Amino acid sequence: MNGRFITFEGLDGSGKSTHLKGAAEWLRARGIEVIETHEPGGSELGQAIRGIFLDRRWGRMDGLVELLLVSASRRQHLLEVIEPALERGTWVLCDRFSDSTWAYQGAGRGVPERDIAMSDALATSGRRPDVTLLFDLPAGDARLRGRSPKRQAEQSIDRLDEEELEFYQRVREGFRARAEQEPHRFRILDSSGSREATAAQLEGYLADLLVEAVR
Amino acid sequence: MNGRFITFEGLDGSGKSTHLKGAAEWLRARGIEVIETHEPGGSELGQAIRGIFLDRRWGRMDGLVELLLVSASRRQHLLEVIEPALERGTWVLCDRFSDSTWAYQGAGRGVPERDIAMSDALATSGRRPDVTLLFDLPAGDARLRGRSPKRQAEQSIDRLDEEELEFYQRVREGFRARAEQEPHRFRILDSSGSREATAAQLEGYLADLLVEAVR
Repeated sequence: MNGRFITFEGLDGSGKSTHLKGAAEWLRARGIEVIETHEPGGSELGQAIRGIFLDRRWGRMDGLVELLLVSASRRQHLLEVIEPALERGTWVLCDRFSDSTWAYQGAGRGVPERDIAMSDALATSGRRPDVTLLFDLPAGDARLRGRSPKRQAEQSIDRLDEEELEFYQRVREGFRARAEQEPHRFRILDSSGSREATAAQLEGYLADLLVEAVR
Repeated sequence: MNGRFITFEGLDGSGKSTHLKGAAEWLRARGIEVIETHEPGGSELGQAIRGIFLDRRWGRMDGLVELLLVSASRRQHLLEVIEPALERGTWVLCDRFSDSTWAYQGAGRGVPERDIAMSDALATSGRRPDVTLLFDLPAGDARLRGRSPKRQAEQSIDRLDEEELEFYQRVREGFRARAEQEPHRFRILDSSGSREATAAQLEGYLADLLVEAVR
């Protein structure tokens, strides 16, 4: 049996990375082999490219240069890590994948959809995750959760920087638009409540996947 | 007056790099500001990506990963080096550009044309050189010239490795096909004769460009 390729998407502060760890534990407890990986940087080449991004010598790098580098890194991640794991029957839980590029670079920064579609086709040759879990909550809530408890106490949503908030609202809408375009692949989790409430939804979806896999 | 963007294309051993230096001297002697640059690696990012290629840790890197990295490097080279020079009126002589990708990755290695067209569109946004000088000669001659005098003496064309020769023949045909598709941009130089004979053709083309530029 081939493994399942499951991506975890959403804003920073949506809880996706925490829930990815929880999902891996839940699946392992049921005898499933699982690897946890992430973008950007899930392969050695990805790490090298991440180093290029962090090195701020390249001030004039534009959105398309970034898109091409992200795409090269994604393809290598697929070839080197994800596909080999799936072939040996391991499940792959991946923190961010193509949908983050559509949401952040596309909806957020305004890189034309046509350019994202082309680079994504080159990166993935049309390979999609089997299932994408979208951890959805209002952008303001996600921004606050991404901050320290002390800073949270000092701030309220309406004191967040307006422009910053609008950017994350566009990103959230970008994720939801992707889910509407490919509903068979997406599961939307309401991530605005307690961690336990979101975990319960997540376990429901994982149980469905287990049943499908053994059928 | 904007500068002119001139690319030098052809097989290794075609003499293009030597003639690029000659062209720069010839133009400078006539009062033209010129920069000499090259691909891959004509920007700091390009150098970093070149380092990634030379580091052989990434054995499983496929043709599309390479194509995406080359494209990122090309776009950065355009943004950081080529366009700013042209804007300040400097002429840019560039050793290899998009046509090398079409010839080597496309015609040579068989990467599908559609993939090359997409990555090239992302890299250049349709920007083409003003003029492309193609240094053309039979693949066997180019391969022999690329070797040391001692090895040349030991070998003749028909002792070259068959497979290697076929690859370079496809690359040569790839360059000639590009020239047929965009004849307004290409100047084909017969590079099979003496260096002086090729230099004379080159100077004729450069003189035409100078006349056009002052008109």
